[in-house]
Amino acid sequence: MLVNTRGVRIEWGDCDPAGIVYYPRYFAFFDACTSALIERALGMTKHDYLKAHDFAGHPLVKARSRFIIPTRFGDDVTIETTVTEFRRSSFDLRHRLNKNGALAVEGFETRVWVHGDAVNGTMKSAPIPQEVIELMSKG
Amino acid sequence: MLVNTRGVRIEWGDCDPAGIVYYPRYFAFFDACTSALIERALGMTKHDYLKAHDFAGHPLVKARSRFIIPTRFGDDVTIETTVTEFRRSSFDLRHRLNKNGALAVEGFETRVWVHGDAVNGTMKSAPIPQEVIELMSKG
Amino acid sequence: MLVNTRGVRIEWGDCDPAGIVYYPRYFAFFDACTSALIERALGMTKHDYLKAHDFAGHPLVKARSRFIIPTRFGDDVTIETTVTEFRRSSFDLRHRLNKNGALAVEGFETRVWVHGDAVNGTMKSAPIPQEVIELMSKG
Amino acid sequence: MLVNTRGVRIEWGDCDPAGIVYYPRYFAFFDACTSALIERALGMTKHDYLKAHDFAGHPLVKARSRFIIPTRFGDDVTIETTVTEFRRSSFDLRHRLNKNGALAVEGFETRVWVHGDAVNGTMKSAPIPQEVIELMSKG
Repeated sequence: MLVNTRGVRIEWGDCDPAGIVYYPRYFAFFDACTSALIERALGMTKHDYLKAHDFAGHPLVKARSRFIIPTRFGDDVTIETTVTEFRRSSFDLRHRLNKNGALAVEGFETRVWVHGDAVNGTMKSAPIPQEVIELMSKG
Repeated sequence: MLVNTRGVRIEWGDCDPAGIVYYPRYFAFFDACTSALIERALGMTKHDYLKAHDFAGHPLVKARSRFIIPTRFGDDVTIETTVTEFRRSSFDLRHRLNKNGALAVEGFETRVWVHGDAVNGTMKSAPIPQEVIELMSKG
Repeated sequence: MLVNTRGVRIEWGDCDPAGIVYYPRYFAFFDACTSALIERALGMTKHDYLKAHDFAGHPLVKARSRFIIPTRFGDDVTIETTVTEFRRSSFDLRHRLNKNGALAVEGFETRVWVHGDAVNGTMKSAPIPQEVIELMSKG
Repeated sequence: MLVNTRGVRIEWGDCDPAGIVYYPRYFAFFDACTSALIERALGMTKHDYLKAHDFAGHPLVKARSRFIIPTRFGDDVTIETTVTEFRRSSFDLRHRLNKNGALAVEGFETRVWVHGDAVNGTMKSAPIPQEVIELMSKG
């Protein structure tokens, strides 16, 4: 599978009064890493890959995370993102956030490929295009 | 167990370009609901309950969420929060976000009770005070 | 002018490692207060008032804020919001965030009434409907 | 004056239902750029420069911004940050966010150099160290 690695600087504004990352921010990092993986696979920005098809995005069905080592402002971390499984219209991703070579946070997302419009209630799942699966499966 | 219920208005700024909640925001709601539950049980604000003991907070070990029904800006939802299990120095919470009487999002957190300082690396787990367990266990 | 007052609890996640509000969060509060003022004046949610006309929102032209007294997690504050001036297609708002009866933060926004679509580059200013001006001008 | 330039990718999660940046996020970008400028001048991370002295940070007195050209998810922008004036214990910064070579957003911050502790109410202004002024004034 294609793995995308991204460097992230932990900012002051990502942290809470304990001085460590406010945990919802990890999910924001992971969401951006998912887009970055797909952007790299498809060779276009999310803005363009949403327009390329009648495609409304890849909303979440499930998300979870394990927090192993705290990270604090000023830390430079890397996040490795890959798909772990494709199904007909949903797929699983894994994010590994590493700090100084050690796994600090691990995140998992299950997302669904959708058409339509979320606000108007017409959003529904659609098969993931075979081309997308192939491009994201390359080593 | 004590259950705390909180009303939340989904704001424009909680939502992404699809018009529905940007999913890390659900975890921000849940984090605030955890504090609100403990505040209600102990009868003091988080600021005060952190000061009352040599207590550095209740950071996350694990978090997960299932997203069942999308919510969009302008929605008024309620979140019911309760502890589902206490262990020596960690505890589990469940958050049920309801929209129009239906379960829209369900969240689960495992948190640890800690002393010390996260930034200086002296943070470590500590037994949850018996008084806290009793106050949060009331029906 | 119509004044809308809103209670806000400062949450742990609104604060930075200094324990006080991370200042961009004040602008998030103000943005939500602007929507709340218009919702109250028009008697419908933002979701509905955007749909009621070919209306794409009220993006910012300018924003500024003065930070007078720090607020920290656990503080309960109130924010008073009102329009201070209407022009043809833009308007000014003032937000006063009070803590324990004292002015803690003051915010000012200049917004423009727009039609069209921001993403596709067709967004352009439009006259503010007279009905909106009247409803927001009531004492 | 020292100018620090930073590349920022506008993420999906930075944007609102109109598809453009949710404006408080610009101030989050600017806050991170201020830290980056000082980090570069002093040759250490914010975590370290806060520890190096009895220094509690550089909270805001005022902030303002002009929004000229909308930015949307997928945009790559650059932000140029510099100090425009030093006073005894406060200083002004300017941030220029450029998109495709054009000024899209301009931000201004007035910050104060402080000692003490914001949460306990002992925070107070202090003279900006001469060494800091010199390092941030280099061309």
